[in-house]
Amino acid sequence: MLNNYSTEDKVLLSVDCIIFGFDNEGLKILLIKRDFAPEKGKWSLMGGFLKKSESLNDAAIRVLNHYTGLQNIYMEQFYAYSEVDRDPEERTISVAYYALINIENHNTELIKNYHAEWFNISKMPKLIFDHDEMVAHAVRRLRYRTSTKPVGFELLPEKFTMRQLLELYEAILDKELDKRNFISKINSLDILVKLNEKDMLSSRKGSFLYKFDKEKYDAKLLNNFALNL
Amino acid sequence: MLNNYSTEDKVLLSVDCIIFGFDNEGLKILLIKRDFAPEKGKWSLMGGFLKKSESLNDAAIRVLNHYTGLQNIYMEQFYAYSEVDRDPEERTISVAYYALINIENHNTELIKNYHAEWFNISKMPKLIFDHDEMVAHAVRRLRYRTSTKPVGFELLPEKFTMRQLLELYEAILDKELDKRNFISKINSLDILVKLNEKDMLSSRKGSFLYKFDKEKYDAKLLNNFALNL
Repeated sequence: MLNNYSTEDKVLLSVDCIIFGFDNEGLKILLIKRDFAPEKGKWSLMGGFLKKSESLNDAAIRVLNHYTGLQNIYMEQFYAYSEVDRDPEERTISVAYYALINIENHNTELIKNYHAEWFNISKMPKLIFDHDEMVAHAVRRLRYRTSTKPVGFELLPEKFTMRQLLELYEAILDKELDKRNFISKINSLDILVKLNEKDMLSSRKGSFLYKFDKEKYDAKLLNNFALNL
Repeated sequence: MLNNYSTEDKVLLSVDCIIFGFDNEGLKILLIKRDFAPEKGKWSLMGGFLKKSESLNDAAIRVLNHYTGLQNIYMEQFYAYSEVDRDPEERTISVAYYALINIENHNTELIKNYHAEWFNISKMPKLIFDHDEMVAHAVRRLRYRTSTKPVGFELLPEKFTMRQLLELYEAILDKELDKRNFISKINSLDILVKLNEKDMLSSRKGSFLYKFDKEKYDAKLLNNFALNL
């Protein structure tokens, strides 16, 4: 039986937080510059060690708050990284969490007293350790989620144009989508309510505004669909 | 910055393996009876501590092999369980892995020298610690996977009847499915090849045999679909 262990087998556990943000400039990621060794001065995910008295979820919330002031962000745990040599100083297993937030709703907190900075996902610097692999993995997870669950409720304003929704999907999938095809596929999900109201800033004729039908949106969160965009 | 830790913060890390099996009696799970304290004599998932020199994947493979003799089983990591009091003896964080295997292909190894036993998923005993929660979580993960990716290639014989495929889905989803509706939905996935051959044991007229179109099956593994059964 495998019930034996030595104190030697005890390891450090850390959490790393991958915060994706969305605004009218596209999909971004929140990073910090390390001010301690190893890898001082390099860019990194927001991470910290698990304490004896907390769960991994507690630790992820504490670490995110420490670096950004952000509170009440629902992060999803997605993978434990455990290669033996992933941290050159000390054996550390890191459990990664991710979330996607609306930058405009949260940015004031971020820039007040804290150290984190937003980077466009296509122009981010090289990260320490295996953090690039974590980010690539989280992006795949986010795209997979987008193909089976609705996105946008927490990311778009209450009323939005079809172009804004299209741009959100283009940002996450990192590709240009055919607008007519997109509209037809999104409409087939039956989660949008077309309003009798136009955004007159976007074009001369104006663009109809939409909002999510919260009840149908939430039902789709529980029952997957396939959105092959 | 969060770069400080004390030796106190080091914890034990374990892996727990959730092996689902399928045969003509339905969906089963592989469990062991603990022969050491705490919780001696109770049923448990197959678990063990991570060693200094191995990754979590290595540990999961080693633990599964120790208890069952099984080799070359692809297990998927799915969640790290970290509630502070989940193990009454010592703070331990456990990373759970799962796999779904064909019982008939592997059973001889299991019963030779090892300690693991198969239980029908609907008649399994209460498990130690938070293992019941892990199993419930893995079952949800398996069902979600089944709704977006094909299953069956490693679980059914090379040639199988539509009834066998139906029974596999019924076992995973734990509900009776309407046969005609099921056939029409499965056919719409376009992953089956109908053979010019019948299984004459299942009924007087016989039942047509099918096999998977491996190329189309693999393509569907990469591109999700929605199968709302």
